[in-house]
Amino acid sequence: MARTLTAAALVPLLGSSWRRPAAGSSRSATLADALRALVVDGRLLPGTRLPSTRDLAAELELSRGSVTRAFARLDEAGYVTARTGAGTVVTLPASHRAVALPDRTDGVVDLTVAALPAPDPLLAEAVQRAARGLARHLPGLGYSAAGLPELREAVAARLTARGLATSADEVLITAGAQHALRLIMDLHVGPGDRVLVDAPGYPRTLAAIRAARARAVPIALGPRGWDAGAWADAARVAAPRLAVVVPDYQHPTGLVMNAAAREAIATTCARAGAVLVADETCSELRLDGPALPAPLGTFGAAITVGSMSKAAWAGLRIGWVRASARTIRELIAVRTAVDMASPMLEQLVALEVYKNWDAVLASRRALLRPRRTALFDALREHAPSWEVRRPTGGISAWARLPTPDATRLAATAADHDILLSPGPAFSVDGTFEHHVRLPFTLAPETTAATIATLARLAAELSGDAPEPAEPREVALAV
Amino acid sequence: MARTLTAAALVPLLGSSWRRPAAGSSRSATLADALRALVVDGRLLPGTRLPSTRDLAAELELSRGSVTRAFARLDEAGYVTARTGAGTVVTLPASHRAVALPDRTDGVVDLTVAALPAPDPLLAEAVQRAARGLARHLPGLGYSAAGLPELREAVAARLTARGLATSADEVLITAGAQHALRLIMDLHVGPGDRVLVDAPGYPRTLAAIRAARARAVPIALGPRGWDAGAWADAARVAAPRLAVVVPDYQHPTGLVMNAAAREAIATTCARAGAVLVADETCSELRLDGPALPAPLGTFGAAITVGSMSKAAWAGLRIGWVRASARTIRELIAVRTAVDMASPMLEQLVALEVYKNWDAVLASRRALLRPRRTALFDALREHAPSWEVRRPTGGISAWARLPTPDATRLAATAADHDILLSPGPAFSVDGTFEHHVRLPFTLAPETTAATIATLARLAAELSGDAPEPAEPREVALAV
Repeated sequence: MARTLTAAALVPLLGSSWRRPAAGSSRSATLADALRALVVDGRLLPGTRLPSTRDLAAELELSRGSVTRAFARLDEAGYVTARTGAGTVVTLPASHRAVALPDRTDGVVDLTVAALPAPDPLLAEAVQRAARGLARHLPGLGYSAAGLPELREAVAARLTARGLATSADEVLITAGAQHALRLIMDLHVGPGDRVLVDAPGYPRTLAAIRAARARAVPIALGPRGWDAGAWADAARVAAPRLAVVVPDYQHPTGLVMNAAAREAIATTCARAGAVLVADETCSELRLDGPALPAPLGTFGAAITVGSMSKAAWAGLRIGWVRASARTIRELIAVRTAVDMASPMLEQLVALEVYKNWDAVLASRRALLRPRRTALFDALREHAPSWEVRRPTGGISAWARLPTPDATRLAATAADHDILLSPGPAFSVDGTFEHHVRLPFTLAPETTAATIATLARLAAELSGDAPEPAEPREVALAV
Repeated sequence: MARTLTAAALVPLLGSSWRRPAAGSSRSATLADALRALVVDGRLLPGTRLPSTRDLAAELELSRGSVTRAFARLDEAGYVTARTGAGTVVTLPASHRAVALPDRTDGVVDLTVAALPAPDPLLAEAVQRAARGLARHLPGLGYSAAGLPELREAVAARLTARGLATSADEVLITAGAQHALRLIMDLHVGPGDRVLVDAPGYPRTLAAIRAARARAVPIALGPRGWDAGAWADAARVAAPRLAVVVPDYQHPTGLVMNAAAREAIATTCARAGAVLVADETCSELRLDGPALPAPLGTFGAAITVGSMSKAAWAGLRIGWVRASARTIRELIAVRTAVDMASPMLEQLVALEVYKNWDAVLASRRALLRPRRTALFDALREHAPSWEVRRPTGGISAWARLPTPDATRLAATAADHDILLSPGPAFSVDGTFEHHVRLPFTLAPETTAATIATLARLAAELSGDAPEPAEPREVALAV
């Protein structure tokens, strides 16, 4: 069994909003809803064994009958199954709407995915050139655990150009940033180790930490960003093995870490003996605002992770790790037990994409800027009571609802064919029920209708009438 | 820290041959050599913490000074490093020869990699068609966690044609068989769980089990194959969670599991509640001999894993899992925490490769048959005292040396620019010092010289004079 969750570990994930059932509902129903929400947005992975009804009831200070009824509801809906000798195990019903469909044709608006169409014709041209370049490699065996030397060079050159001097032997080519993070965790993190993360933080980072059976230690982001004092305190108390931050256009808030915080966090991690990982997946997606500070890796020893999947196209699965040459050698060895090597053609495409990298980034900005405008126009019109800071880059914003109904909103929205990431998906402890993530990657024409629907549903949930048709101006932070 | 190895867990890996130092050598030197061998062929991954010198000395019944000297030798050579608060940790020196280089140009003959050049021009043509087909997908977001529907259909159709009726929703597209196995382990296996494996078994399967912190339970293969009684006993005693077998052209022995053993093992695993995984990576590489029995999945519930990387080209990183639709849904959810999705172009190439699949397989056979002949001719000429069964398919053979010197042979061969996988790399307990794996993927002209060198080195190690130039005939099993 992949993971057994104790009652003590499960209860914080559930948050507390399920304890306030709507009129006509029961606590066993809302508990079942809360558990289902954890499964739906990936906080509980299939194969996870739930605690016994007895243990969970005791931890929740609820009757065992209520918990048993909640489990029975989940079983009936196909979200858990009782396996002989293995207790109650999370599974997925046939009706489950998979995220990350290659070509979504079911009419669903998927806000759980923040991604753009490919930069066309740049990508198609790169593929044509790569296809011709492959001929040279066909007589070889094709194994590429470290990555193609030319691509390692190109990544190193780009990092150097961005201010982080890098040589090719300090680069490992991976299948994207998630894969890179997984390899780093395989090398550095074991069960029970503490990993410092931003709160809110990127859900798949939290999933990777859970998969390693490590313990995520959340450090709250303030409205202006990272709190150096909180980092120093957490590093002292938690004795972390690793820390993961997204310094540029943090996911989901869009915040940028200032130079002083970079300096402080790098120093804190070095003193604590924690490996610091900077996820630069969105670092090249600056839309406006001041220039970014120097990369985090220039402030101290950090492993840097990046990817083409946000900055170019998610259908291109190429990312990288930048670390010391020794760490790269170690990651290569670890990688052979995970997926052996990177595809040869895909790497050649990435190499060709790099040759027109500025044009690729320009094409992303040309898409993102009007989409961001459309999102904030729609919020101003339909959801003036939501508090949202306008990011200066990246791909998503972080909205605060007037009431702590994010999970219920996500459930209701799904009934209206809108998939939404509720705030708790970005937390390790069931918090952020006041928040939802709003990517600004949707086509502008889709955005207004989607936000209008979400605002109406949220207002209904909070018991208010819908907002008046007359738009109110609100201060949206820049 | 990724893994901490107890002295009790490390000692079996070391085997016993290091206890017999050659004249002029010491036991601390041979212990260091044995530890280095574990690192070099990937049985000890970087980041692994070794036991303390005190614990290891006690377990080995050796003086602590000898163990300390062995660690000091490894530290000097760059294979371990003492980290503050973390003990002695495995690392890799700059001189480490990475496996899986994209284009090996260092003059090294690498027998640790069993792989062929690409099927040209079939692959180049498939890439050209795939590049054109990509246009249709560029307006999409590119995420493909389950795999392209057309490719899932094609894999299902091929499995069905091979006798295992499969629908598209029973297929997940992965980045190769190793990645597939890793996802299955993420779903089904936790720390301490027992996993039944063949002995000898595929090293990367053993590595995946170690990475999951599970315990591999080896079941010896007999000269004719699988022992149904031993499987039944092991299933009863070990209460395994999972079992992994390579039924067709087992790696490394090349053995084929007969129908009776398939039936027995499927039944045994079902009764024990163990998930049975059939690795069919080499199943389509039949060279001669009788037709294969029906796929293992037809004999009972089994998860089937396959890949294009052996049957087509290792530079193409596409594999798959075939399981129940429910298990596939669960694996998709697990996958989003590992590497998110498969590359779009790579999948289109795989789809095009399938359209000429018979021709691709024919091109593999056309390469493998003469290479196998060259290997066995060379063995007959240069190493008549080695016992080797001639496989009827797959890519490698399993040779028994006259003396238990495999690890020392691999070390000596490396000094002669030949990388070799010694028998213990295929074991979980340091056994098979009598064996080496010999892939028949080398160009015929390279094979004779390589085998001649290996035979000479082995003879020198065993204290014998080289074999006489006059070849002796030996019985090589068909």
